[in-house]
Amino acid sequence: MRTLQVELGERSYPIYIGSGLLEKIGELSLEHGISAKSPHLIVTDERVAPHYLQMVEDRMAEAGFTTVSHVVPAGETSKSLAVFEQVMTTAIQGKLDRSSAVFALGGGVVGDLAGFVAATYMRGVTFVQIPTTILAHDSSVGGKVAVNHPLAKNMIGAFHQPVMVLYDVDTLSSLPARDVSAGLSEMVKHGLILDEEFAYWCRDHASELLALDPEALAYGLERGCAIKADVVSQDEREGGLRAILNLGHTIGHAIEAVGGYGRFLHGEAISIGMAGSALLAETLGRGNHLFEQTREMLSALNLPVVLPSDVSVDEIMDAMQHDKKFTEGRMVFIVPDQIGKVSIVNDVPVNAVRSVVEQLKKEG
Amino acid sequence: MRTLQVELGERSYPIYIGSGLLEKIGELSLEHGISAKSPHLIVTDERVAPHYLQMVEDRMAEAGFTTVSHVVPAGETSKSLAVFEQVMTTAIQGKLDRSSAVFALGGGVVGDLAGFVAATYMRGVTFVQIPTTILAHDSSVGGKVAVNHPLAKNMIGAFHQPVMVLYDVDTLSSLPARDVSAGLSEMVKHGLILDEEFAYWCRDHASELLALDPEALAYGLERGCAIKADVVSQDEREGGLRAILNLGHTIGHAIEAVGGYGRFLHGEAISIGMAGSALLAETLGRGNHLFEQTREMLSALNLPVVLPSDVSVDEIMDAMQHDKKFTEGRMVFIVPDQIGKVSIVNDVPVNAVRSVVEQLKKEG
Ligand SMILES: NC(=O)c1ccc[n+]([C@@H]2O[C@H](COP(=O)([O-])OP(=O)(O)OC[C@H]3O[C@@H](n4cnc5c(N)ncnc54)[C@H](O)[C@@H]3O)[C@@H](O)[C@H]2O)c1
Ligand SMILES: NC(=O)c1ccc[n+]([C@@H]2O[C@H](COP(=O)([O-])OP(=O)(O)OC[C@H]3O[C@@H](n4cnc5c(N)ncnc54)[C@H](O)[C@@H]3O)[C@@H](O)[C@H]2O)c1
Ligand SMILES: [Zn+2]
Ligand SMILES: [Zn+2]
Repeated sequence: MRTLQVELGERSYPIYIGSGLLEKIGELSLEHGISAKSPHLIVTDERVAPHYLQMVEDRMAEAGFTTVSHVVPAGETSKSLAVFEQVMTTAIQGKLDRSSAVFALGGGVVGDLAGFVAATYMRGVTFVQIPTTILAHDSSVGGKVAVNHPLAKNMIGAFHQPVMVLYDVDTLSSLPARDVSAGLSEMVKHGLILDEEFAYWCRDHASELLALDPEALAYGLERGCAIKADVVSQDEREGGLRAILNLGHTIGHAIEAVGGYGRFLHGEAISIGMAGSALLAETLGRGNHLFEQTREMLSALNLPVVLPSDVSVDEIMDAMQHDKKFTEGRMVFIVPDQIGKVSIVNDVPVNAVRSVVEQLKKEG
Repeated sequence: MRTLQVELGERSYPIYIGSGLLEKIGELSLEHGISAKSPHLIVTDERVAPHYLQMVEDRMAEAGFTTVSHVVPAGETSKSLAVFEQVMTTAIQGKLDRSSAVFALGGGVVGDLAGFVAATYMRGVTFVQIPTTILAHDSSVGGKVAVNHPLAKNMIGAFHQPVMVLYDVDTLSSLPARDVSAGLSEMVKHGLILDEEFAYWCRDHASELLALDPEALAYGLERGCAIKADVVSQDEREGGLRAILNLGHTIGHAIEAVGGYGRFLHGEAISIGMAGSALLAETLGRGNHLFEQTREMLSALNLPVVLPSDVSVDEIMDAMQHDKKFTEGRMVFIVPDQIGKVSIVNDVPVNAVRSVVEQLKKEG
């Protein structure tokens, strides 16, 4: 078992990465001071539940815990206020109190939703992340939790750190291939923003990663989590540095919104968005060959780098108006300087962005 | 203008109390660093809007601010996730960004609702309280914000401190008499928990307070806010001491829930609850004459101290099961020791509580 510490003062917490960790959920919960006197809530989704819910429930019961479970539909549509309210109903009916904990057993959707429940149930209770996707190496670290508003993604949320992250790599074996690639998108992002060597390592080990080779996977997840944790430690509430984690996300979120949060997976959308950021760097005269290099890395991981021809440029541009990366009316973008290094650029002209979105379609 | 400082480290903020303060909202916003480059949101209700919304909008505009307004129906039913989502829609359509602020112009309902919007819009933006009820001298201080779940009150919320509270006592002149009394309920509560002299002062100045005598009102609001602020400063997130502010609230919230959040005003329900706490003290053998003294104070302020005969004891007991003042399954109550002094009593037997609720009906 590898242990990574996220340093956040009194809100610091460990990320455990390894094989067979789900078996240890009961004892780790006790170690982390979770009360056996209060009932706890496990939130998961309908695809994850058949594989792992029973085991988590059983291990918790064996350690002396009472739990209630809530299974949401799989997919981004569960990050809604309607589903949020249903989970709250289960929490209330399960008599959760202020000493209770909410466990997120699943990918980023379950983590964001259950985390927002934990952040707001009785104004905040303990939160535990049990990520079961590769993408969740990103979403489970950093304390950002949210649900979507019909008009824009992640618009309603909070910062709420977990008390531990329990990453059992065995759970990844049941993950569909498309979600494997989508998850690797955020992994390579962590290389692209801060670690050139790691970005090329992802490209060079693409086939092992796609085949879920345990060694490659464990290294990649640990390195990805470590980069994310490092950024978050320096800027918990996204005052500055943390914004670099949004590489590819402004265009990516717009793509997700225009696709109705169902057509593109988050990792796919931000893959196209990262390709767009590389194009933007070239358009702004900030770098050469960046698009080529970025595209090569992403394609190696079976990720899309172009916008399908039926997606409307106008709709993408409109959706970006709602995105929260606009501060005080100016357009802010994370733009690569080279592989492994990015800048936060304010005052990016809207025209340059539109031209990039148009190119992203033409490349297809 | 009286200024009270709520001491919360880097989250400290002032409460301004006085006449004609609404006129100063623009300049005070500028003083508090609210950005004139971002749009801001004013949330109010349909009864407050006709009196004061235009003035606030105009003063903000004169100071160079752009605002959008959202008017919700009056009353507790607006503290719902459905209304919350509608306010979020207005915020998004108004293009609020991370430098925007949410202004709550109204009573506790608007404050709690708008505060929860401020706490969660883009994971948290600036919040300003402009209380227009007497009760809001309580709700606008302390940073507790929330909406209700159909099964229980204030179940979904956060701690989110305002950057300032602007209390214009002139706005109280339009308040209906019933809401005046209900507001005085929390005022006398502040005396009952920590300040014997102030509690008797409220009783002795009941007629001036009910008549909205400016001098009596300003003193009472200032003293009430000061006691609340003092408690909150010592225990921002309700780890211990802050619980004493819940005097009368466990029974009170159950009364509100059983009445469908419409029959009883919050202040009325907690008035009955405070009478109940005094009865509980006597039932537990912790004090004498407390019920008599408490009832006298509350009655002087035209507040109810008995449960109407049609209210079911069973329903009240059931509703309390959902209340958040239960920690790890035990029943916790705030119980008076004498006027101006309370204790937090754990392990209160459910039977004692039931007997008190039964007595509260018989007294009627
Ligand atoms: N909070 C953050 O900081 C942050 C960061 C990045 C992404 N996100 C969010 O994460 C979400 C995407 O995360 P995701 O890709 O993990 O999505 P997801 O949770 O929807 O999981 C992807 C799919 O895989 C299924 N699944 C999950 N684990 C499985 C397993 N072990 N075996 C079989 N099937 C499994 C799910 O049911 C789902 O259908 C987005 O909502 C995004 O906004 C949040
Ligand atoms: N957050 C906290 O710490 C806290 C503390 C106590 C109470 N509360 C909450 O506060 C709420 C009750 O507050 P409230 O009594 O102010 O209720 P409220 O906001 O509903 O106001 C009472 C009524 O007076 C009207 N009104 C308000 N100001 C007016 C004015 N100046 N002129 C004319 N009409 C006016 C409103 O439209 C409403 O009909 C409850 O939801 C309670 O849970 C919160
Ligand atoms: Zn992402
Ligand atoms: Zn109250």
